[in-house]
Amino acid sequence: MQPGSLTPFLAPQGVAVIGASHDPTKLGYGLARNLVQSGYTGGVHFVNPRRGSLLGHPVYASVAEAPDPVDLAVILTPPPTVPQALEECGQRGIRAAIIASGGFREVGSEGAALEARCVEIARRYGMRIVGPNCIGVIDTHFPLDTTFLQPPGPARGEIAFLSHSGAICAAVIDWLRGQGLGLSSLVSLGNQADVNETDMLAEVAADPDTRVITLYLEGISQGRHFVEEARRITRQKPILALKVGRFESGRRAAASHTGALAGSESGFDAAFLQSGVIRAGTIEEMFLWARALAWCPLPHGTHVAVLTNAGGPGVAASDALEQQGLQLASLSAETISTLQEILPPAASLHNPIDMLASASPEQYARCLKALLEDPGVDSILVIAPPPPMFSAGGVAKAIIPVIQAGEKPVIVTLMGDRLVQEGVEFLRAARIPEYRFPEAAASALAVLARRAQDLDCPEEALLCSTDVDIPRVKSILSNCRPGEFLSQEAALGLMEAYGIPTLQLRLAATPEEAARLAIQEGFPVALKVASPDILHKSDVGGVLLDLGDAAAVSQGFDAVIRAARERRPEARIEGVLVQRMLTSGQDVIAGVVSDPQFGPVAMFGSGGVEVEGLHDVAFALAPLYPRDAERLLDKTWAGRKLQGYRNLPPADRTATRLALAHLAQLAADFPELAEIEINPLRVLPEGQGAFALDVRARLKK
Amino acid sequence: MQPGSLTPFLAPQGVAVIGASHDPTKLGYGLARNLVQSGYTGGVHFVNPRRGSLLGHPVYASVAEAPDPVDLAVILTPPPTVPQALEECGQRGIRAAIIASGGFREVGSEGAALEARCVEIARRYGMRIVGPNCIGVIDTHFPLDTTFLQPPGPARGEIAFLSHSGAICAAVIDWLRGQGLGLSSLVSLGNQADVNETDMLAEVAADPDTRVITLYLEGISQGRHFVEEARRITRQKPILALKVGRFESGRRAAASHTGALAGSESGFDAAFLQSGVIRAGTIEEMFLWARALAWCPLPHGTHVAVLTNAGGPGVAASDALEQQGLQLASLSAETISTLQEILPPAASLHNPIDMLASASPEQYARCLKALLEDPGVDSILVIAPPPPMFSAGGVAKAIIPVIQAGEKPVIVTLMGDRLVQEGVEFLRAARIPEYRFPEAAASALAVLARRAQDLDCPEEALLCSTDVDIPRVKSILSNCRPGEFLSQEAALGLMEAYGIPTLQLRLAATPEEAARLAIQEGFPVALKVASPDILHKSDVGGVLLDLGDAAAVSQGFDAVIRAARERRPEARIEGVLVQRMLTSGQDVIAGVVSDPQFGPVAMFGSGGVEVEGLHDVAFALAPLYPRDAERLLDKTWAGRKLQGYRNLPPADRTATRLALAHLAQLAADFPELAEIEINPLRVLPEGQGAFALDVRARLKK
Repeated sequence: MQPGSLTPFLAPQGVAVIGASHDPTKLGYGLARNLVQSGYTGGVHFVNPRRGSLLGHPVYASVAEAPDPVDLAVILTPPPTVPQALEECGQRGIRAAIIASGGFREVGSEGAALEARCVEIARRYGMRIVGPNCIGVIDTHFPLDTTFLQPPGPARGEIAFLSHSGAICAAVIDWLRGQGLGLSSLVSLGNQADVNETDMLAEVAADPDTRVITLYLEGISQGRHFVEEARRITRQKPILALKVGRFESGRRAAASHTGALAGSESGFDAAFLQSGVIRAGTIEEMFLWARALAWCPLPHGTHVAVLTNAGGPGVAASDALEQQGLQLASLSAETISTLQEILPPAASLHNPIDMLASASPEQYARCLKALLEDPGVDSILVIAPPPPMFSAGGVAKAIIPVIQAGEKPVIVTLMGDRLVQEGVEFLRAARIPEYRFPEAAASALAVLARRAQDLDCPEEALLCSTDVDIPRVKSILSNCRPGEFLSQEAALGLMEAYGIPTLQLRLAATPEEAARLAIQEGFPVALKVASPDILHKSDVGGVLLDLGDAAAVSQGFDAVIRAARERRPEARIEGVLVQRMLTSGQDVIAGVVSDPQFGPVAMFGSGGVEVEGLHDVAFALAPLYPRDAERLLDKTWAGRKLQGYRNLPPADRTATRLALAHLAQLAADFPELAEIEINPLRVLPEGQGAFALDVRARLKK
Repeated sequence: MQPGSLTPFLAPQGVAVIGASHDPTKLGYGLARNLVQSGYTGGVHFVNPRRGSLLGHPVYASVAEAPDPVDLAVILTPPPTVPQALEECGQRGIRAAIIASGGFREVGSEGAALEARCVEIARRYGMRIVGPNCIGVIDTHFPLDTTFLQPPGPARGEIAFLSHSGAICAAVIDWLRGQGLGLSSLVSLGNQADVNETDMLAEVAADPDTRVITLYLEGISQGRHFVEEARRITRQKPILALKVGRFESGRRAAASHTGALAGSESGFDAAFLQSGVIRAGTIEEMFLWARALAWCPLPHGTHVAVLTNAGGPGVAASDALEQQGLQLASLSAETISTLQEILPPAASLHNPIDMLASASPEQYARCLKALLEDPGVDSILVIAPPPPMFSAGGVAKAIIPVIQAGEKPVIVTLMGDRLVQEGVEFLRAARIPEYRFPEAAASALAVLARRAQDLDCPEEALLCSTDVDIPRVKSILSNCRPGEFLSQEAALGLMEAYGIPTLQLRLAATPEEAARLAIQEGFPVALKVASPDILHKSDVGGVLLDLGDAAAVSQGFDAVIRAARERRPEARIEGVLVQRMLTSGQDVIAGVVSDPQFGPVAMFGSGGVEVEGLHDVAFALAPLYPRDAERLLDKTWAGRKLQGYRNLPPADRTATRLALAHLAQLAADFPELAEIEINPLRVLPEGQGAFALDVRARLKK
């Protein structure tokens, strides 16, 4: 076994329970009981100074006495005694410990110090720790249960569950039993003094009994490491994540639009997208999806057939499918004629297929078979409200062999409770997902389609240009002060160094100079007040556009200076910047902001001064993969509009994606940049490029 | 009893079951059984040519033989025999009939003819019909059950359920039993040959046993009548509606932005908003809300305290509350010090309150009492994952008397299944809403807060100006052809007649005339091609803005004509319109489109050419109430921006609301208008008004 291996946590050869108790009201008894009752076949060693025997196993006064094999310790003793227990484990040669006890970092600074001591001891022995303040680990296949929870534990299943919250583990285990859903493994991560979500993710992903991984996260410890691991794992197995604490941190203070719009969740959203992790909104949704992903084949497309015995549920199903971005399949003439043979004349043969209330189990089965054989049908939603003449159990029994013989996903909606219970149980035993309402079924079908699409995408390389001038950026940044915004010239210099086209900005100190520069650059020109203290220049009347001749420019010079002086008397004003104006194209915003957990995150969308109000923006982790750049454009109206809209001709999408990629690369190469924002990026008609017209960039403090 | 009264459907003095059957496999037996087993105390009369007796009641060969009292017939015979049965009912003096049989309009034209015959017979006798193709009526308090569904029927409760789908009725009855939720009444409306959802809505609203009304709708028969009735009823009792078929009809063909953006659901949304009906997305959501509205007092505000025994669920609850627009209450110093006395030092006393895993039932109860007494707390969310040391049942038992003694809504989340079942049952018996996850609980608290806010709003009168020139509109419209767009002059005339300010549009036939008109109007001016065939003028290069002098105007005249001729050679071009330009203010769009179910629906939002892409629009039923006008502004970025944003000064919101109200009134007064659209409506700085700069209007075909 590798030093530092996590294998003993899920597949130990022998477990020492330090703090095992004879008192059935104590958690230390529950832990011992669960370990024994789980059917664990390795060495079981209870440790308690009072010795004796417990549940048929000897109790040792110290872990030193425990005989081989023993490679995992579970510690559930009062917090002050935990460091000593760890020491003894280290001396006994144990290299993995679950600290179940609470009373560490979560209760304040004294507890944090105690936790630090534990980590220090573990480091010394090369020992890995799960916890403290956790409820331990369960593997239903190995089997192993190191928790102290009230029985029964989870049923055997294909889903791994990793959680930052122990209480959620307890609730999920009990709730899943009622849902007829099992787990392959469960890990309560607690305070993560050592082993974190990413470490354990890789461990459970390697488990052949796990088909789907579910995560309950309150944060992510090593953002980029998580993304890399998850991206690798999701090529093999789906990962579903529920991240809570969405609203806790609020928006961070930021001077740019990009920063203001990038709430703390933008980083998580971008990270999950790039790593292929499917983000759920609630625990119910996560396991609704997990059930389908664990039990169903993947569909080859998004066309769904709906088979039901009443009109109302069919309409509700159509709504739900459409809302999920799925389509009702058009049935082939052959299928329709087969259905016609099976069903009475008043039945509706067009998708959704309404077999009428008289539909028998046999009719359900025969129609389902016909639909499975239709090449235009990718997946099927079967719905049965309590049938007036037959039992839902009979329907379930009839369709199960048909579903099992097919290779397409079939999801069943049994609407009701007691009257459909027998059918529910048949379907659960056959590992066919069933839900009570069509909305849940449609959501499950959608996640299957999404997973199929994700796997269809070939692996990509990061967008990374070699034609960048790193020394030039270094030199520019070395002249800038931490926490402050770069001058416009410096910011444009960054663009040029990374191959993002700009328009020259020429500084004029007098009206005459401005006019002369405008003649050199070509009309029309824009004038912008030059001041290191004025960020939102148009807010102070510091921008004049479309000046068509020299006279307008020299008058404009005075107007801009006057307006800026009036509105911001304290600002240092260096003159006026003259810039040629591009008279065609579309304006968008492109930015990058540094996320505390994930580093640089790129933003794209509708720019201008109203960017924060319109909120037409999307985010992606920087640097970008080609798919990220595509997505940024597809997800925003600003990006879709680049394809042409009404009198707007198609704009240069290729140049836009390139600018985004280079901007993201710049931010990734220079993590000292807190934010960069191009607003606007002017995208010219196809083939003519995209220009950074105004750029703001700020160094971290 | 009034002629045409619906009272016999829910409270009959005697019921004749026509088609009662002795064969337990037949629906006609189920119907007889349910009626008898429901405990109905009025006259029970079975009708079947085979006579005899059934379930202790005599069976008559014909309804004519049934003795008094009999004021309701339930007909479940083959469709062709139904008209004759209705005739006999009419002759027997029965004035209310439920036609449960299917095989009418829903199966095609032959069935539709049969249905029409039934209606004709009913009209002749002044008889009311529920159905056909329905499963009948249940009243759990009266009590009465005229359905043929498998037992058990719904438990007694406070919620009325009206449904267009019989299958959904069957599913909901069974499902609600499992949810521990009862119904006061249930009406399956079927094909609504006579009695429709609005008729029955008024009937169940008058039932003192009904506290909440829930609707499953596939459409609405008389849109405006529904809105009036529902608006009246929601002042007394909450109405929740699930409208399915959202995606069925798709967008209607329309030439204006307003028409294109107004999907078929905009009318429903606007109608529900104006009538105070709360629209649910799913059946689960509707009854989740109904439970809270039926059982809880209303809160006085939106500040929620969360009481839990673990960190994870508290974070999830905070997320869910924030997402619902609720706030975490700040606790008073007194409350915090009381909590401090009750809880161990490591507990978290700030909302969400984490009592730690050791929390006892008594601690739950005492902390809850302290929170109920805090004046800053409007409602409370109590969460219990399976407690490691106590039972969820114990927690429930301890908090129930505290909740019942308080006057604030308390919602409980018991997370799990088997381990929390006892607690769930205690709470259901005490009529305290409990859910499995915090998201559902937060959603319930939000609907209570929304209901409280709705009731807080005073009743309003419609915005209706008397200063309108109806004859002028009549005269303008009499010169327009059905289905066609009005000329710009005619459209602007409509605005003027209804007090919506416009800018003069002067038609120039030559460049010289254009320049002369521009000098008269004042610079800058805009030029727009004048053509009845060109709707989107800027799309063809037919608009020039900001022309500052006479030379620019005469050159512009040629440019506009040339561009329009090139792009639309077939268009009739009448010349160029000259219009003074307003150089300040904000542009918005205001429109009205005629909805097939609800008549005129007003739209407001971000205008310009990108209106369809940005989708920053909101809808309200026309004419408007003051609250509707307010909401149109508040719900859109275009409207919020009118309060001022960055360098944009506050704009004239009063004039905007007035323009919206007058536009809506115009559309309501002249239902022959298919659509009207002001794009842009230029809103000047506060006190300076809002001007319709470009107006398109079209008559219905």
